[in-house]
Amino acid sequence: MIPRKQVRGVVEHKRFQQFIIVVIIINAITLGLETSQKMSAETHGLLHVADRIALGIFAVELLMRLYGHGWRFFTDAWSVFDLLVVGIALVPATGPFSVLRALRVLRVLRLMSAVPAMRRVVSALLAAVPGLAAIAALLFLVIYVAGVMATQMFRHVPGGYFDDLGTSLFTLFQIMTGEGWPDVARAVMKVTPIAWIFFVVYIVVSTFAVLNLFIAVIVNGMERGVTEEMVEAEEKHAADQAASDRMLIEEVRSLRLMVEEMRAERTR
Amino acid sequence: MIPRKQVRGVVEHKRFQQFIIVVIIINAITLGLETSQKMSAETHGLLHVADRIALGIFAVELLMRLYGHGWRFFTDAWSVFDLLVVGIALVPATGPFSVLRALRVLRVLRLMSAVPAMRRVVSALLAAVPGLAAIAALLFLVIYVAGVMATQMFRHVPGGYFDDLGTSLFTLFQIMTGEGWPDVARAVMKVTPIAWIFFVVYIVVSTFAVLNLFIAVIVNGMERGVTEEMVEAEEKHAADQAASDRMLIEEVRSLRLMVEEMRAERTR
Amino acid sequence: MIPRKQVRGVVEHKRFQQFIIVVIIINAITLGLETSQKMSAETHGLLHVADRIALGIFAVELLMRLYGHGWRFFTDAWSVFDLLVVGIALVPATGPFSVLRALRVLRVLRLMSAVPAMRRVVSALLAAVPGLAAIAALLFLVIYVAGVMATQMFRHVPGGYFDDLGTSLFTLFQIMTGEGWPDVARAVMKVTPIAWIFFVVYIVVSTFAVLNLFIAVIVNGMERGVTEEMVEAEEKHAADQAASDRMLIEEVRSLRLMVEEMRAERTR
Amino acid sequence: MIPRKQVRGVVEHKRFQQFIIVVIIINAITLGLETSQKMSAETHGLLHVADRIALGIFAVELLMRLYGHGWRFFTDAWSVFDLLVVGIALVPATGPFSVLRALRVLRVLRLMSAVPAMRRVVSALLAAVPGLAAIAALLFLVIYVAGVMATQMFRHVPGGYFDDLGTSLFTLFQIMTGEGWPDVARAVMKVTPIAWIFFVVYIVVSTFAVLNLFIAVIVNGMERGVTEEMVEAEEKHAADQAASDRMLIEEVRSLRLMVEEMRAERTR
Repeated sequence: MIPRKQVRGVVEHKRFQQFIIVVIIINAITLGLETSQKMSAETHGLLHVADRIALGIFAVELLMRLYGHGWRFFTDAWSVFDLLVVGIALVPATGPFSVLRALRVLRVLRLMSAVPAMRRVVSALLAAVPGLAAIAALLFLVIYVAGVMATQMFRHVPGGYFDDLGTSLFTLFQIMTGEGWPDVARAVMKVTPIAWIFFVVYIVVSTFAVLNLFIAVIVNGMERGVTEEMVEAEEKHAADQAASDRMLIEEVRSLRLMVEEMRAERTR
Repeated sequence: MIPRKQVRGVVEHKRFQQFIIVVIIINAITLGLETSQKMSAETHGLLHVADRIALGIFAVELLMRLYGHGWRFFTDAWSVFDLLVVGIALVPATGPFSVLRALRVLRVLRLMSAVPAMRRVVSALLAAVPGLAAIAALLFLVIYVAGVMATQMFRHVPGGYFDDLGTSLFTLFQIMTGEGWPDVARAVMKVTPIAWIFFVVYIVVSTFAVLNLFIAVIVNGMERGVTEEMVEAEEKHAADQAASDRMLIEEVRSLRLMVEEMRAERTR
Repeated sequence: MIPRKQVRGVVEHKRFQQFIIVVIIINAITLGLETSQKMSAETHGLLHVADRIALGIFAVELLMRLYGHGWRFFTDAWSVFDLLVVGIALVPATGPFSVLRALRVLRVLRLMSAVPAMRRVVSALLAAVPGLAAIAALLFLVIYVAGVMATQMFRHVPGGYFDDLGTSLFTLFQIMTGEGWPDVARAVMKVTPIAWIFFVVYIVVSTFAVLNLFIAVIVNGMERGVTEEMVEAEEKHAADQAASDRMLIEEVRSLRLMVEEMRAERTR
Repeated sequence: MIPRKQVRGVVEHKRFQQFIIVVIIINAITLGLETSQKMSAETHGLLHVADRIALGIFAVELLMRLYGHGWRFFTDAWSVFDLLVVGIALVPATGPFSVLRALRVLRVLRLMSAVPAMRRVVSALLAAVPGLAAIAALLFLVIYVAGVMATQMFRHVPGGYFDDLGTSLFTLFQIMTGEGWPDVARAVMKVTPIAWIFFVVYIVVSTFAVLNLFIAVIVNGMERGVTEEMVEAEEKHAADQAASDRMLIEEVRSLRLMVEEMRAERTR
C-alpha cells in the first residue's frame, strides 16, 4: 500500500498541477470543437476519444486526491466542486437526462480551482456574497409583490408578459435589468393607461435597490483596496510617532536620572 | 381590563414576532397561488379562507399593538406602514376600487418591518433619500423643460412619442433610463433631421445628472462603510498618541517637581 | 434718480427672490398647459396673457439687477444665464426662427439660479466638468476615428446606419450608450461577417473610456464627500496633537527657566 | 552628416510638435471629408493630395526620430505605435487588403501620443489593464463554458442566435452587455420553456463579474485620486509632527546640557 502522504506529494506537486491545467485547456478546446457537427463527423470520433481520455485523467487525479486526503477531502469546498463538475459525466445522459450532456462542459470551470490567480479572484467575489443577502432578499420581495400585483392587474394584456405569476416574475426581472421595458409598458398602457405609475415606481424602486446592491459590493472592494493602503500609511506614521515619542521619553528620563544624581551628590 | 404593559410584552415577545413572520410568508404564498385561476378553482376557495385567516391575525396583532402603545403607535413610521398595508384589505374592492384587490399583496411588504435585518437595510436606503432631494428636483426640472420643448417641436411625429405633455414626460423618462432611445430618435429625425441635437444634449445632461444622483448615494454608502473604519483607525492612533503624550508630560512634571524641591532644599 | 444700492437692496431681498421663484413656478405650469392645444383654445388666450405677465416681471427684475449692479452684472455667469433664457422670448419666433418658440420654456431653468440649494448642486456638477475634458476629448477622438472607418467599410450595408460620416457618428454614439447595438451589428454582419471584431473592440474600448469618465466624476465626488470628512478628522487630530505638543514645550521651557534661575542664583 | 543630437533637438522642439499636432488635425478633417463621395468628386482629388502631404510629413518626422534616437526608438511604446499607424498607409490597399484603406484613419489616433494631456489619460487607462487580467480571464471562461452549453442545448432554436460556437459567443457577449436579451430568451423559451434558468443564472453571474471588473478599475482610480490626497494630508501632518518633536527634543537636550554644565560647575 502506497502511503497517503506520498500520493498527496505527487498530486500537490507543481508539475502535476500544471499538467492538469494543460489537460483542462485541451479538454475545453475539444469540447468546443465537438459543438460543430461537421467537425465531429470529420474527426471520426477522435474528439470524443480525447474527451474520454481527459475525463479519465481527471478521475484518476480525483481518486488520488481522495486517497491522499481521506475524508478531509470533503471539507475543502474547491475539492467538492471539482468532484461535482467531473462527476456529471458519469451520469448516463439519456432520456430525460439528455440535458446533462450539455452540462459536461462545466468541467472546464475546474480552471477556476486549478489556477491560483483565478482561485483568488473567485474567492474574493464569493466573499462579497454574504454581505448582499439582506438586500438580495429585499429585492426578491419587491419583485414577488410586484409580480402578484402585475398578474392580477395586467393578466389580460396581449403580449404574454403577465399571463401567470412565473411569466410576470420573468418580465419583472427583465424590467429590472432595464431591458425592453418600454415595449412592455406601452403594450400594457394601451389597455390600462394609468399603468405608467406601476412601471415608473417599480423601475425607480428596483433600480435604487440594485444600485445599493452594487454599492455594497463597491464598499466591500474599497475596504479591501483603498482602506488597506491608507491604514498602512496611518500605521507607518503611528509607528514613526511612537519611535520619536520613545526617544523623547528616554531623553527626559536620562535628564531626570542626572538631576537625581545631582541631588544625591549634594545631599551627600 | 388587561394592563397595556402586559399586552406590549406579548406583542414584542420574540416568539410572537417569529409567528407573525411565518404568517406573512404563508400569506405571501397563498396570495401567489391565488393568481393562478386554475389553482383557485381547484382549491374551492381554500386559498381565500387562508388569506382571510392571515388578515384576521394581522388585524388582531395591530389592535393589540394599538392598545399596547396607545396614541404613540402613530409616532412610529413602521407601525403606520403596517396599519396602511393591512388596512387596504378593509376597503371594499368593488367598482372603481377593484384595483385595490391587487394592492392587497402589499401586505407582504410587512416582512420588511418584521425581519430586523431587512428593517436595517430599508432604513439605510431611506436614510440616503433626503440627500438626493436637490439632484432629484434638478432632474425633474430638466425632464419637465425637455418635455415641454419636445411636445412643441415633435408633436406631429408619428409613433405617439410626444403627442402631449404626459406622453412626452413618459418618453423622456424612458430615454433617461437609456432604453429604446434610438427608435424614438430615428422616428423623430425622419421628420426633423436636426433633432439629433436635442437627443444627444438631453442624454448627456440627464445621464450626467443621474450619475451624480448615483454618486451621492455611493458617497453616502462610503461614509457609512470605508470612512467609519478609517476614522476608527485614526482615533485609535490619536488615543495612543494622547496616552504617550500624557506619559511625557507626567515625566516632565515629575522632573520639574524634583528641580523645584532641589531649589527649595538649597534655599533652605 | 434712485440710488443703485437701494435697487440692489430690493432685488436681493429674500421676499423679492421668493416672489420670483413663485412666478417661475407659475410660468412653468402655464407653459406646460399651453402645450395642450385643447387647453389653449378653452382658456381663450388666458394662458398666453399669464405668460406675457411673467415675462414682464422677469424683464423688470433683470433691468433692476442690471441697473443695480451696472456692468458688473455681466461678470456673474448666473446673471448672464438669466438674461439669455429670458431674452429668447424677445426674438420674433417666426419663419426660420419658429423653433425659438419651443425654446421659451428654457426660461423655467431660471429655477436653478433662483433656488440656492439647486444653485449649489448645479455649481458642483459644473465644477466636475473641467477635470473631464481630456477623457471627453479622447472619447470624441475614438468615436471620430471609428466613424470614418465604419463609413468606409459599411457604407453599403442596408439600414441607413453608416450612410455618411454624420450618420455613422450618430450610430456610434448610440452603440456607446449600449442601446440597440445588436440590431446594428447583426445587420452589418449579414454583409460583412467579420464585422463582429469592429463592434466588440469598439464596445470594449468605448465602455472602458466612458467608465473612466464616470470614475473621474466619482473620484471628484469622493474628494468633496469622503475625503473632506476624513481630512477634517485628521486635522482635528493634528490640532489636538499640536496643542498637546505646545503644552509639553511650555512645560519644558518653564523647567529650563527654573534651572537657569537656579544656576544664576548659585553663581551669585 | 548631421549629428543625432541636433536632429533630436529639432524633433522634440515644442514648435515642431505643435506643427505635427496641427497636421494630424488637418489630416483628420480631410480623411473625414473623403468619406463623402460627393465631396471627393468635387475637390478633384485635392483631398487625396492633402492626405499624401500629411503622410509625407509624418514619414519625415518618423525618420528623423528614428535617426535621432537610433535603435532606442523601438524601446518607446508610443514611438512604435506611431510607426505602426503611419505604416499602414504604405501597405498596398488592393485585393484582399482593401480593408486597410479604412484603417488609414487610425493614423489620427497619433493625437493621443502627440498631445501630452491625452497621453497621460491613455497611460492611466492602460495602467489599470494588468490588474484586470484575472477577472477578464474569468469572464472569458464563463462566456466560453456558457457558449458551449448554449450551442448544445439551443442549436435548433430559430433566430440564428446559437447556430454554432462562434454565434453563441457573440450572442452571449450581447447578453452580457445587457442588450436585447429578452428577445433572445423569449425566442429560446418558446422551444425550451425551462431555459429561463440558463439566462437568469448567466445574467446574474456575468453582471456580477463585470461589476467586479468595474470595481477593480474604480478602486484603481481611487488609489490614484482620493488616497493620494489623503496620504498627502497624512504626510504633511506627520512632517509637522516630526518638526514639533524635533523642537521638543532640542529643548530637552539643551536643558540637559545646562544641567550637565551646572553639575560640572559644581564638581569644580
